[in-house]
Amino acid sequence: MNKKGVLVVFSGFSGSGKGTIMKKLIEQHSDTYALSVSATTRNPREGERDGVEYFFKTITEFELLIDNDEMLEYANYAGNYYGTPKAYVEKKLNEGYDVILEIETQGALKVKAKYPDTLLMFVTPPTADILYDRLKGRGTEDDEVIAKRMAQAKVEAEVIDKYDYIVINDDIDECVNHVHEIIKNTHDRTVFRADTIDALKKGLTKY
Amino acid sequence: MNKKGVLVVFSGFSGSGKGTIMKKLIEQHSDTYALSVSATTRNPREGERDGVEYFFKTITEFELLIDNDEMLEYANYAGNYYGTPKAYVEKKLNEGYDVILEIETQGALKVKAKYPDTLLMFVTPPTADILYDRLKGRGTEDDEVIAKRMAQAKVEAEVIDKYDYIVINDDIDECVNHVHEIIKNTHDRTVFRADTIDALKKGLTKY
Repeated sequence: MNKKGVLVVFSGFSGSGKGTIMKKLIEQHSDTYALSVSATTRNPREGERDGVEYFFKTITEFELLIDNDEMLEYANYAGNYYGTPKAYVEKKLNEGYDVILEIETQGALKVKAKYPDTLLMFVTPPTADILYDRLKGRGTEDDEVIAKRMAQAKVEAEVIDKYDYIVINDDIDECVNHVHEIIKNTHDRTVFRADTIDALKKGLTKY
Repeated sequence: MNKKGVLVVFSGFSGSGKGTIMKKLIEQHSDTYALSVSATTRNPREGERDGVEYFFKTITEFELLIDNDEMLEYANYAGNYYGTPKAYVEKKLNEGYDVILEIETQGALKVKAKYPDTLLMFVTPPTADILYDRLKGRGTEDDEVIAKRMAQAKVEAEVIDKYDYIVINDDIDECVNHVHEIIKNTHDRTVFRADTIDALKKGLTKY
């Protein structure tokens, strides 16, 4: 069995729990999933390792990757580049892993435009009020930051309909199982089953 | 809960077991699924009831349905019309049922062209040899009929890649569960979740 993996992009409001979902998915199915490692030009923080949390690049290196079309998507925030190097993702897909990317909506739509077979999933709490309560409940952010996140959520909500699936994160474990099921079943989409279809056609020729 | 149902089209080689899968699906989840009833101009056979096995129509009635764009798809075989009346399908979808149609490939592609959100599933045994063995094993058809079915399979195999999913029928019960899972998850495709997305957007406006 040497099936190619599915490229899965997760986006979701800050506070949606998407990070936890991805972490649990990978913990529970480490033989199936690989998490994409982003590249950045910002400096490593205490304890961050090159190739684990990020691939750390100089601006020159990063711009060379862009020029050589070696980035799936990238963006510049506050003077630093962030992006997804193609090489790592393609290596893992070819090894048969389903590769999971956590990126914001603009990046997600860019990836989908380049790779239409990408599975785009948008994670959200059941309601806007629950989103607010979760952000508030963390107790780690002041009101101004929370207001900013809610404003950001409004912008992101405008493009949810461009995603393939919307996933409601009510109970985290149910949600993880649900996401796993959706990704698993995606392997039976005909675009991922070209080998099976070819084998059937070939098998039928002798009759 | 007043969600609109999913329109599901099943096709598959003669001998794929698609009829059994659909029967079991509907038996096990009669609250979820409704089977579309076809219309035909052929005469009822012994025991067939109007509105159950088929809607029996005169040629004039059938052609009126066609002219009024009231058929999802139709075809003429050996002088008799066969087709899927829209009214019944739409009624059941609006009642929240997932409506299952069993139609051949040409009809399936016509439905998909008209209703892009239709879920097209193609059912097949694991291999062409197993298909042949199953047809042979039935013991009800002579070699000429089996040869015709295999030839028909070749034609149908050419359009499998136009379907959304290919479903391998190896173990029938596993296959039924798998199909049910795929249909269930289809409800979380964003196209079927417009209400949820609108509610989220509306909820966010107050922040």
